[in-house]
Amino acid sequence: MNILLKNGEQLSLEEGADCIKCAAAISEGLARNAVAAKVNGKLVDIRTPLSEGDTVEIVTLKDKEGLDVYRHTCAHVLAQAIKTVFPTCNLAIGPVIENGFYYDIDFKTPITLDDFEKIESEMAKIIKANTPIERFELPRKEALELMAKYKEKYKVELIEDLPEDAVISFYKQGSFTDLCRGPHLLSTGKIKAFKLISLTGAYWRGSEKNKMLTRIYGTAFEKKSQMEEYLAAVEEAKKRDHNKLGRELGIFMTSDVIGQGLPILMPKGAKILQILSRFVEDEEAKRGFMITKTPLMAKSDLYKISGHWDHYRDKMFVLGELDEKGESLNGEEIMALRPMTCPFQYQIYKNGLKSYRDLPCRYSETATEFRKEASGEMHGLIRVRQFTLSDGHIICTKEQVEDEFKRCLDLSYYILDCLGMRDDVTYRFSKRGASKSDKYIDNDEAWTKTEAMMKYILDDLGIDYVEADDEAAFYGPKLDVQIKNVHGKEDTLITIQIDFAAGESFEMQYIDVDGAKRTPYVIHRSSIGCYERTLAFLIEKYAGAFPLWMCPTQVKVLPITDRTKDYADKVCADLTELGIRAEVDGRNEKIGYKIREAKLDKVPYILVVGDKEAEEGTVNVNKRGVEEKTTMSKEDFENLVVREDRKKVIF
Amino acid sequence: MNILLKNGEQLSLEEGADCIKCAAAISEGLARNAVAAKVNGKLVDIRTPLSEGDTVEIVTLKDKEGLDVYRHTCAHVLAQAIKTVFPTCNLAIGPVIENGFYYDIDFKTPITLDDFEKIESEMAKIIKANTPIERFELPRKEALELMAKYKEKYKVELIEDLPEDAVISFYKQGSFTDLCRGPHLLSTGKIKAFKLISLTGAYWRGSEKNKMLTRIYGTAFEKKSQMEEYLAAVEEAKKRDHNKLGRELGIFMTSDVIGQGLPILMPKGAKILQILSRFVEDEEAKRGFMITKTPLMAKSDLYKISGHWDHYRDKMFVLGELDEKGESLNGEEIMALRPMTCPFQYQIYKNGLKSYRDLPCRYSETATEFRKEASGEMHGLIRVRQFTLSDGHIICTKEQVEDEFKRCLDLSYYILDCLGMRDDVTYRFSKRGASKSDKYIDNDEAWTKTEAMMKYILDDLGIDYVEADDEAAFYGPKLDVQIKNVHGKEDTLITIQIDFAAGESFEMQYIDVDGAKRTPYVIHRSSIGCYERTLAFLIEKYAGAFPLWMCPTQVKVLPITDRTKDYADKVCADLTELGIRAEVDGRNEKIGYKIREAKLDKVPYILVVGDKEAEEGTVNVNKRGVEEKTTMSKEDFENLVVREDRKKVIF
Repeated sequence: MNILLKNGEQLSLEEGADCIKCAAAISEGLARNAVAAKVNGKLVDIRTPLSEGDTVEIVTLKDKEGLDVYRHTCAHVLAQAIKTVFPTCNLAIGPVIENGFYYDIDFKTPITLDDFEKIESEMAKIIKANTPIERFELPRKEALELMAKYKEKYKVELIEDLPEDAVISFYKQGSFTDLCRGPHLLSTGKIKAFKLISLTGAYWRGSEKNKMLTRIYGTAFEKKSQMEEYLAAVEEAKKRDHNKLGRELGIFMTSDVIGQGLPILMPKGAKILQILSRFVEDEEAKRGFMITKTPLMAKSDLYKISGHWDHYRDKMFVLGELDEKGESLNGEEIMALRPMTCPFQYQIYKNGLKSYRDLPCRYSETATEFRKEASGEMHGLIRVRQFTLSDGHIICTKEQVEDEFKRCLDLSYYILDCLGMRDDVTYRFSKRGASKSDKYIDNDEAWTKTEAMMKYILDDLGIDYVEADDEAAFYGPKLDVQIKNVHGKEDTLITIQIDFAAGESFEMQYIDVDGAKRTPYVIHRSSIGCYERTLAFLIEKYAGAFPLWMCPTQVKVLPITDRTKDYADKVCADLTELGIRAEVDGRNEKIGYKIREAKLDKVPYILVVGDKEAEEGTVNVNKRGVEEKTTMSKEDFENLVVREDRKKVIF
Repeated sequence: MNILLKNGEQLSLEEGADCIKCAAAISEGLARNAVAAKVNGKLVDIRTPLSEGDTVEIVTLKDKEGLDVYRHTCAHVLAQAIKTVFPTCNLAIGPVIENGFYYDIDFKTPITLDDFEKIESEMAKIIKANTPIERFELPRKEALELMAKYKEKYKVELIEDLPEDAVISFYKQGSFTDLCRGPHLLSTGKIKAFKLISLTGAYWRGSEKNKMLTRIYGTAFEKKSQMEEYLAAVEEAKKRDHNKLGRELGIFMTSDVIGQGLPILMPKGAKILQILSRFVEDEEAKRGFMITKTPLMAKSDLYKISGHWDHYRDKMFVLGELDEKGESLNGEEIMALRPMTCPFQYQIYKNGLKSYRDLPCRYSETATEFRKEASGEMHGLIRVRQFTLSDGHIICTKEQVEDEFKRCLDLSYYILDCLGMRDDVTYRFSKRGASKSDKYIDNDEAWTKTEAMMKYILDDLGIDYVEADDEAAFYGPKLDVQIKNVHGKEDTLITIQIDFAAGESFEMQYIDVDGAKRTPYVIHRSSIGCYERTLAFLIEKYAGAFPLWMCPTQVKVLPITDRTKDYADKVCADLTELGIRAEVDGRNEKIGYKIREAKLDKVPYILVVGDKEAEEGTVNVNKRGVEEKTTMSKEDFENLVVREDRKKVIF
């Protein structure tokens, strides 16, 4: 029979040959490395028989899909080991994820990290035994009977939920059988390097209404060296994780009596936010934005006009009792905390008649906003229930949209340059696209036109973006500036959106050159994004060693003895006068101890001043990250640090 | 018989003499001017008979109490006139207030300001008739019958609510009789100058559950010239009223769809708040405060510890449904918007062990807070549902309380000096005092000690304060810095409080010199107060012509023609570089028009630049409030304006 390879070549195989035979026909090495195959685009076991005309692609551990098969088999080895060590437990699901796999298990008695050694040693035994792995299928009734016999109630539930015509397959290795779509390796012995990583709780099927199961995370690699490299990188990422490092550095904390998703910015974190927000507000003012300060709550009336009441209510904190239709239960006024600033700034636009001469109207605000995130979704400073957004809206004519959009992007570029993050971001053009879900405003023509307008602008700017369907705002398409955290998870940092609906729904108008009343366009934009989230990424990027201009303490002056305390105070006062955030550590501690503490605090410049420095009017400079110390005149240091503070752009 | 005068002299009068006889015995002029008397400290009609040994003081229109009697009689004249013009209406109450009186009336058909003329002309008739006013008393039953006969149902209700042994008195003038404690003038003709002022709605007995009545405000003066002077001052006050002027100047606005008590700060107002809050934050940092940024909401757990849940809940916005005991109705987490920052900043203190070396810990925050004011209580920027407080807490040892309290006051003095308001404020020492209402924390010993400690500090500082019982915070006594608005209504601007309870209830501790764990004291303080409220008082004080340092636009540069546009831009750019908020008005309008507009906007300096100025490098300066214009070199003007901006203290 003839089959077709991925590269388009034909291959002749004997009738009834399977994928492994196909691999062998290509090369002996490929047959040795083959872990699965893709037949007519579908990933299958390497032992799957082929038919005339099939398109075949051999998958090895070099392919992501191959590594996934490898790890999925490791998840089965984990399950078998656990059933051996804890025979009374029940298995739920065990999928592959990025960088590894997990298995959710219902234990009679909760296990701890201490149990990992026992489980891993049982896994090693199963691997050493090199048990063959076999696939078989059963009709629904027999499949249910088999799983019922093994008392695997979660598997029974899974089978019951499968469609009538589903193929129900199992994989068996020795005495252990698991419900599974596959594919898998040929035998357990193929696994060379694995490790159990962590333990967490997880609801069955992700719903809070169900039982909390135990989720065991693990990983597996082709080679031990690769795994060690990966684990080292994970350890490094953990150290930089803002949710750990940010707390260690005293930037933020949380409190059980206050609640989840409500981080408290401690003096160091609050100072950074003050520095960043003043910088952004001043830069926005320079670029023609007018600052506003609008209320954090409003009557439901406002959100009904904006569409948030219909499209976004379940993410809003509502004050007052609602009936099932979303109306006031007892006739009292319903208020809600705002998830955005837009309709508040529109009220300012609507105050007084506007003419084309007033446009563009650029409003911006360092705005507190609220989002009712579910309790499982919250994370450090990245996903929170209350946040501070550099939120702004440009109300302009249609002709001005392109230029204003570019100006918004230019502002964000400048800010990213000052944060040193310009190279860390990617761009996503988020569209409604084909999705016509009712979460979007229903106006096909406007969607088509606005998405085309935005695509034109992005292409004109030569932005290297990916397109994403079903990621738009409910009122229009957006450009998302994306960034990955230290664990590789991507989030939106900044967004710029074109709104075709607000002008009309809020009855905003302007008198045009010809005296006619026209409806303006709206651009929603952030400049630096959400301050808390941006701070999280800054912590992770710099591992707490922030660029000088945003450091809460920029210079720490350490007198060696009490004799030089006055000189230290003078150095500090003169720096303060120049607008530098300097502090004296005049405590009665050893100089080595004070230096170590200031270094742990990641202060950019530590100045040590002894008798010699006081006499000569110099300072001994310990620059952060530089081993060597330099002595220079007080004035030279002042010039150096003032210059570094002013020149924010980081290359 | 002998009576005693206020000055201690004895006076011999014939048996049965009344107060007017007494006045006549002193002087004929006094008898002519007497409107009432105080007998043994009680204010009574001038015709009241005296007895042996009474202490007597004759009251004239020069006394506040005398003017009150005069105005109270005028209120009766108003009531009589209204009953004549609208016989079907019902009278409620008609007391004297500062600067006048009002009467609450239940009209069958609502009246309007247009009806004032008719009522005033009827009042004039009653006054012209000079009807004698007579007092009589009735037993309860007959009093009720009399009022029932006149169909005055509100008066019936008032009598019913009087204690069993109350003396029930009436005043009769011609055919009109009113339930009244008095005293009153001898006849209606004594009134020389009166005016009805305004009309508003008012609930019977001030409760929303009762019927809305019509309140008619009026005033009366001894002389017409005094009344005209007063009315002119009221008109001037109305013009300065921040709730009018603040809107006219585009400082703030409100919106029906957003809701009451939620002012929107427009660009001009938001800019002033930005300037003020940066100034305060920087000044606080200089004085050792650490900035924080804490969440605006928390779980009810936090407020239960702080005591707000028990003592303050009805003023809080609660998220979630409560049962009548204040517990969650459906078991879901209950959150509430914060009315203060204290327990949030305590969490930061509690993060990590503190030693005596760490104290005092001074935290401050430009904090958004919420208060669920009733809809009738809200007013402009002064009484709102969301506000921005310069909120801070000092956690210190008992020994440090005095010094820290003084530092807080010193900071507020400095800020008041910079606002030019130091002479506008008065001081109130607000104590629990004799009140032991359950709104206060129940700890007699702590109250006594803390009030004594605070009194000691205030006396030591030589502050000229009034004491006010039952005005304390629920956790301790406070010093309130009070200010009056343009209409004479007093409000609190700044407050500094000593808290004896928080240390213990929040389990805050520090390790003392001797190694023992001790509980710190807490000082709650504001420095500039609530920004929105302070802004309201600034608008009223300066009628919008703010001190230069806080003006959104400090300098406006007006080129006379397009030829000098470049020079105007250069003047503006150089000022901006020096940190001055300057703008160019380059519109194609007449120079006179542009000057007028900038003056209406109350810009401190308007620079007019024509060919001559451009050539010579000068500017023509229009200083706000100064008629004469001055030409000076660009550099001289720069020096002048920079100096004025930096030197904030206003004498």
